[in-house]
Amino acid sequence: MAAAEDHGGSLRARANQEACERMCASDPVLVDVRPAGEVVPGMTPHTVLTSGAPLAWDDYLGGQRSAVIGGALYEGLAGDPEEAERKIRDGAITVSTCHEHDCVGSVAGIYTASMPVFVVENRTDGNRAFCNFYEGPSHRRLNYGVYDGEVRENLNYIRDVIAPTVADAVRSLGEVPLRSLIRRALHMGDELHSRNTAGTLLLTRELTEAWLDFPATRRTEVHQTLDFLRASDYFFLRLSMASAKAAANAGHGVRGSSVVTSMNLSCRDFAIRVSGLGERWFRGPHPELEGRLFEGFTMDDVEWIGGESHHAETVGLGGFAQAAAFALQAYQGGSPDAMVEMNRRMYDITVGEHPEYQIPYFAYRGTPVGIDVVKVVKTGITPVIDGGLAGRGGGQIGAGILRAPMECFRAAAAAWEETYGDAPVPAAGA
Amino acid sequence: MAAAEDHGGSLRARANQEACERMCASDPVLVDVRPAGEVVPGMTPHTVLTSGAPLAWDDYLGGQRSAVIGGALYEGLAGDPEEAERKIRDGAITVSTCHEHDCVGSVAGIYTASMPVFVVENRTDGNRAFCNFYEGPSHRRLNYGVYDGEVRENLNYIRDVIAPTVADAVRSLGEVPLRSLIRRALHMGDELHSRNTAGTLLLTRELTEAWLDFPATRRTEVHQTLDFLRASDYFFLRLSMASAKAAANAGHGVRGSSVVTSMNLSCRDFAIRVSGLGERWFRGPHPELEGRLFEGFTMDDVEWIGGESHHAETVGLGGFAQAAAFALQAYQGGSPDAMVEMNRRMYDITVGEHPEYQIPYFAYRGTPVGIDVVKVVKTGITPVIDGGLAGRGGGQIGAGILRAPMECFRAAAAAWEETYGDAPVPAAGA
Repeated sequence: MAAAEDHGGSLRARANQEACERMCASDPVLVDVRPAGEVVPGMTPHTVLTSGAPLAWDDYLGGQRSAVIGGALYEGLAGDPEEAERKIRDGAITVSTCHEHDCVGSVAGIYTASMPVFVVENRTDGNRAFCNFYEGPSHRRLNYGVYDGEVRENLNYIRDVIAPTVADAVRSLGEVPLRSLIRRALHMGDELHSRNTAGTLLLTRELTEAWLDFPATRRTEVHQTLDFLRASDYFFLRLSMASAKAAANAGHGVRGSSVVTSMNLSCRDFAIRVSGLGERWFRGPHPELEGRLFEGFTMDDVEWIGGESHHAETVGLGGFAQAAAFALQAYQGGSPDAMVEMNRRMYDITVGEHPEYQIPYFAYRGTPVGIDVVKVVKTGITPVIDGGLAGRGGGQIGAGILRAPMECFRAAAAAWEETYGDAPVPAAGA
Repeated sequence: MAAAEDHGGSLRARANQEACERMCASDPVLVDVRPAGEVVPGMTPHTVLTSGAPLAWDDYLGGQRSAVIGGALYEGLAGDPEEAERKIRDGAITVSTCHEHDCVGSVAGIYTASMPVFVVENRTDGNRAFCNFYEGPSHRRLNYGVYDGEVRENLNYIRDVIAPTVADAVRSLGEVPLRSLIRRALHMGDELHSRNTAGTLLLTRELTEAWLDFPATRRTEVHQTLDFLRASDYFFLRLSMASAKAAANAGHGVRGSSVVTSMNLSCRDFAIRVSGLGERWFRGPHPELEGRLFEGFTMDDVEWIGGESHHAETVGLGGFAQAAAFALQAYQGGSPDAMVEMNRRMYDITVGEHPEYQIPYFAYRGTPVGIDVVKVVKTGITPVIDGGLAGRGGGQIGAGILRAPMECFRAAAAAWEETYGDAPVPAAGA
């Protein structure tokens, strides 16, 4: 048995090292901004993408179901919610997951063909990931399950003004390398999930170089876009997410690896997939939550409507870099000591440390990268995730720290053992 | 004796509260950029300003003396160093202190009439302070005691390209409020003395709003200025310094106050002045130093050539906010724990906490403001200061933490006691 474990252990160690190195070597570059329909693989004019591991349509409920329907209405695929429901059942509208199309969904994560997306390429491996735009500072947004005239107008504004102004800047610059921006942002108080203030400013400076040379006829749009960026400290999140997705995908598919390459949330469950275990999803219940709610809301108002920004944590950012972002307390609560302690514990469940993304408070130690499901089960420590919180009835109502459920890691560790090991993985700390 | 002390104590407490509140209420606004000769009070075409409490010309030595002479040559007041020396002795060139002209000197702190300065107005009290421009990323700069063809070219470039481009942006915007930028920069890893990366980016975004509307004929200069800002993470320091000087001056002149309103360094000494003790300077030896030197240098190479950026610490920034800027380790050495400990101890020698400038790592506690010379003497704790280090022969050779010398605080506390107290201040911890 010891020999069998050693065998599995060293296979796992080598494979996990490989998966972690691939994630760390990922070199994300913003290469374009295009309508999803033009660039997202498999995207059709009648597709709506949403967050989380796949579900049957009947299993979508609450805010996430409303968000998918809102997306269909926004795209003009149906005239009212009933027609949208009917067409989804008929197959005239296809509901699919972001993940299956190399997209990454913020909260409900709604993508339709006309929506502009950032195209981020991992230069090291050549794979691409896509993320749509931050909807701005309003708490009422399609990705938080709200769809009405105001949300529609805002999405149109992003499609018609913000995205083209950013797109033309990116084309004029040729590309915007993101690895150096993320590295710097970590020294400036961002953890690149719930805090992206520095990333947004650094990106703004890059785009400014191009905007200065825009013709006078574009002046108004450039000012509008600058204003939007100024009001949207979260803007860079979508680039952080696409970068994280590209890195996580690069780490997937290493034979023998027990490293997590995706963490997703839907209205039904929290799900992970694992580098060496193919396309299977391992599901568990919704996360435990410590949050800070906007005035007038209580924890009873929180609703789970999806979320894939957890790819930040999957590659060692967000909750795994929260000791770089003490300013987050004002947004999601908690104390500096708790943040430090949570961040430190993430080193106990990961495989490596990022060579360039570093945490100044930890004396420039690299962020913990590569969650090993076996380590999670052995230590009883599950990943911590910084996240925005949706409310029943839609809209953002706060933010907080989510603790991923142990169940999906246990299921994944058992599957790894079944596939690669001869002996069961001991489950100590759980 | 107890009654006498109470009397002194409560006078001091009230007066110190007043001085501290005035400093905290200071509302710095960048209102203009002009040649020093046009705006600095008492500045003449043949004046050279330098850092530190006043000295006779014969007492200036080493890099600071070279820097003053360099300033005279740069301004065309003399054709060579010998002529400059002669004219200074003759009185044809006036050497004066920055402080006497409401300026604040970085390191040697050289100001001449043609040099552009930021004009910062404290909206609350109406007083103004001035600071000249950061010379850019080269280690060889006039303010570090170097003057040669390259330094001259660079100063001309700042005068002819950078300053006018910034000046016209400020005029076009009307003004740039700085209090909100400083507040935000503290949440983004700056302590506003040895780290100004976020401040520089935030300022860049403000100026960009104006630059976008510049005529096409100015395009090249705007790009040059953006490039200069991109290469100069320190750029905002000069605005932080002018803001600090304006705040410190606002706190000066409160009868009975033992709060420090200036900390200066010259080639000869470290000097402070105190709110309730008029224009006297209390002098001590050069600070103790823990530093990190650029490759190829040792501590023996360090030379003291002046410095007034310590006004940042005087008003609760820099070393008094270093727990907001853990990224500083890479620049000036030290450890996060040491930074936290040093920062915490500054609360023991100060009078109040800033209501808006806050340190996220301290759970958003306000920065410690208003150094009380009596508390310094009683606790034996002297102020810690983040600073750049000059080398013998000129140029920057590193950065570090300076500990102000106890002597000047003892002298000031004794003077306060003489002026206001009936009983000697007990000197416990020294």
